[in-house]
Amino acid sequence: MSFSNLQKLFAEALGTGLLVATVVGSGIMAETLSDGNVAIALLANTVATGAILFVLITALGPVSGAHFNPVVSAIFAFRRELSWGFAIAFMVAQIAGGFLGTLAAHAMFEESIIQISVKARSGPSQVFSEAVATFALVFTILMTLRARPSAVPAAVALVITAGYWFTASTSFANPAVTIARVFSNTFAGISPADAVWFIAIQFVGAVTAWWAADRLLAPQSRD
Amino acid sequence: MSFSNLQKLFAEALGTGLLVATVVGSGIMAETLSDGNVAIALLANTVATGAILFVLITALGPVSGAHFNPVVSAIFAFRRELSWGFAIAFMVAQIAGGFLGTLAAHAMFEESIIQISVKARSGPSQVFSEAVATFALVFTILMTLRARPSAVPAAVALVITAGYWFTASTSFANPAVTIARVFSNTFAGISPADAVWFIAIQFVGAVTAWWAADRLLAPQSRD
Amino acid sequence: MSFSNLQKLFAEALGTGLLVATVVGSGIMAETLSDGNVAIALLANTVATGAILFVLITALGPVSGAHFNPVVSAIFAFRRELSWGFAIAFMVAQIAGGFLGTLAAHAMFEESIIQISVKARSGPSQVFSEAVATFALVFTILMTLRARPSAVPAAVALVITAGYWFTASTSFANPAVTIARVFSNTFAGISPADAVWFIAIQFVGAVTAWWAADRLLAPQSRD
Amino acid sequence: MSFSNLQKLFAEALGTGLLVATVVGSGIMAETLSDGNVAIALLANTVATGAILFVLITALGPVSGAHFNPVVSAIFAFRRELSWGFAIAFMVAQIAGGFLGTLAAHAMFEESIIQISVKARSGPSQVFSEAVATFALVFTILMTLRARPSAVPAAVALVITAGYWFTASTSFANPAVTIARVFSNTFAGISPADAVWFIAIQFVGAVTAWWAADRLLAPQSRD
Repeated sequence: MSFSNLQKLFAEALGTGLLVATVVGSGIMAETLSDGNVAIALLANTVATGAILFVLITALGPVSGAHFNPVVSAIFAFRRELSWGFAIAFMVAQIAGGFLGTLAAHAMFEESIIQISVKARSGPSQVFSEAVATFALVFTILMTLRARPSAVPAAVALVITAGYWFTASTSFANPAVTIARVFSNTFAGISPADAVWFIAIQFVGAVTAWWAADRLLAPQSRD
Repeated sequence: MSFSNLQKLFAEALGTGLLVATVVGSGIMAETLSDGNVAIALLANTVATGAILFVLITALGPVSGAHFNPVVSAIFAFRRELSWGFAIAFMVAQIAGGFLGTLAAHAMFEESIIQISVKARSGPSQVFSEAVATFALVFTILMTLRARPSAVPAAVALVITAGYWFTASTSFANPAVTIARVFSNTFAGISPADAVWFIAIQFVGAVTAWWAADRLLAPQSRD
Repeated sequence: MSFSNLQKLFAEALGTGLLVATVVGSGIMAETLSDGNVAIALLANTVATGAILFVLITALGPVSGAHFNPVVSAIFAFRRELSWGFAIAFMVAQIAGGFLGTLAAHAMFEESIIQISVKARSGPSQVFSEAVATFALVFTILMTLRARPSAVPAAVALVITAGYWFTASTSFANPAVTIARVFSNTFAGISPADAVWFIAIQFVGAVTAWWAADRLLAPQSRD
Repeated sequence: MSFSNLQKLFAEALGTGLLVATVVGSGIMAETLSDGNVAIALLANTVATGAILFVLITALGPVSGAHFNPVVSAIFAFRRELSWGFAIAFMVAQIAGGFLGTLAAHAMFEESIIQISVKARSGPSQVFSEAVATFALVFTILMTLRARPSAVPAAVALVITAGYWFTASTSFANPAVTIARVFSNTFAGISPADAVWFIAIQFVGAVTAWWAADRLLAPQSRD
């Protein structure tokens, strides 16, 4: 199968949009219903996010590769499996799609359509958490693509499922999703100032994962 | 394998019946046990629904295609993969099976066998939610059938798992299930007046998904 | 691969034992920790039971078929895929293994090793629930074995996952497990008098499922 | 594919590190958010641990076999599928990686980097629980490797998912993880004195599982 560039960009925008709509929407739903028990709210948010990741990667992977994430597109560009021009187009589509996903979630939950989050997620622990989260995500993608490509949808869904709990930041691990969450002053939100740090460290975590996967897979030449 | 028309209709009725029995029954069980915490109740309802969807699609898919959903049968008719006469017979079987599923759930939980729900699920946010939910469901089915048919049971189970949380309506996304839930004044119920709007918008969401999947898959001719 | 009769009986006893140890043990753990919220306790019980079913069927299926359930062995005997002598030996192994599983769970949780449950699970709704639960389980097994054998572990795990919630009885659906649960006066227990009814109706549900699956698969000659 | 010894040791250290970071980190997160309901905390801890096990075994299995567990490496050495020198190097890597995983979790959650747990997990029930837990884990690995190798990641993830609930000890089942948890005085911690007993009995459980799997698979000569 081969797909046009426009189809690929549409797949990236739509996929990131549905991912963000799920993250933000299920956060609103969960917080509303959970009666103040944040663990229950985060558990529901986790289940919804993991589920939709499996779905979107399965459904759209054959079209665009199902990156939905600028650091993933950047790593494939670094690895010369994607041109930089194309990677940047992917990133724009992801960011635009993610932003529209936030708007869609707000429309579904009778929230003001555009908001700016004031939720602080700051400090070295949060930043270190994002480094670990993005490392784990990108390392999982690169190793699983190599080891067992058909398991990528499940592996990505489950590394984020775990990441919601094993990092203090709940594993954003994705600049497009981070930007989209700036525009939602709800459960899933993040203030603009903190988002900048998150995005910067996400690239660091991703590059570290690329390096580690490369060392682990070194003897094999990847055509 | 080839199956008779009667076998296919029986599979659609039985599958939709067990699906509705699970949605309604687990809703009653969850609400009864959850001590007023609606998030816990919905989480249990979600787990049960996602689980039975995987089971029913796996078990009955080879017989009838496992639509269990009038909008899905309609889309296959629009795509000329199913005759309209057959699609309408499927819909009748689905609606009849779903209705019996509600009765079965009531019998299992010592509820009055037939009830009419008074639960309001109205307003533009609810209607928009159903559009998104049905779009996500039908889009997932069409793309996954194409990309990786063996993943359809898991993908459908998980798009509904996510949909219970990322939409304000908890993703009915199915006219037969919606009709069946009118007859249960319990956790999963919906009032008749609101059901009409849900069903109408579900068809809109499904057709939009068909259009989007068609655009994404355009270069390939599907025999 | 071929296995000796002794190996098969050992697999059935060990598998049923670990299944019961999980059902009973996780019930004790969940009730102890859940602070009176029964929905949370049942959710934990559900997750543990579904998980171990996948594991045991995957690990032991190739040895004995992983019935772990007298009604399943009986149905295979009715279908002449297992001799009746063998089926009865399987049932004895299942019941003995299940009983030891209860003892193991009690030993792990500092409970008196042998107990008799006083937990009432009676009335027509409970009995009808067990009919539906066992129908769903056996129907799932027969259809999935036919449609996609590699999906049997997941399908059985998930039909029970759903069954814990969509039936009022929490889906025992298994005479060996029912007998084993008589000997535990904990979360998962059932009084001896009620167990008799459960077991009787489980056979009715199983035979009904056999009949339904047979009708659905009629045109195909098996093997 | 063939990998150098250094790559294998790195995979074992990294995998065990991420596993421990998830166990410890998600325990801290869950306890912090769960408002005193330990069942909810343990459920979140369970979901995160099961998820990361699937991910790590899928991603790193092809490199090192993804043991992440000294008793697993020991059993493969007993079975002569791994030299003892190599098995001991694996164990050192696992213990070192696990220890660093605890430190990483503490850094992510603003905890003192090194702690010593005072959490008592003692008594015959706890010790018996670890025997059963490790038996179940190793038996699952050996049988599934034989029956359906591609299901090992899911089977291991799910046997631990169940084990968190069906054993009184929450299924440590791993000496490297047990040692790492000594250094965290949080939800997942264990006091040094109790850890000694856990580790000793884990080897007993593992050897018993090896014996049982060997009996069950006896007629087949392995490779």
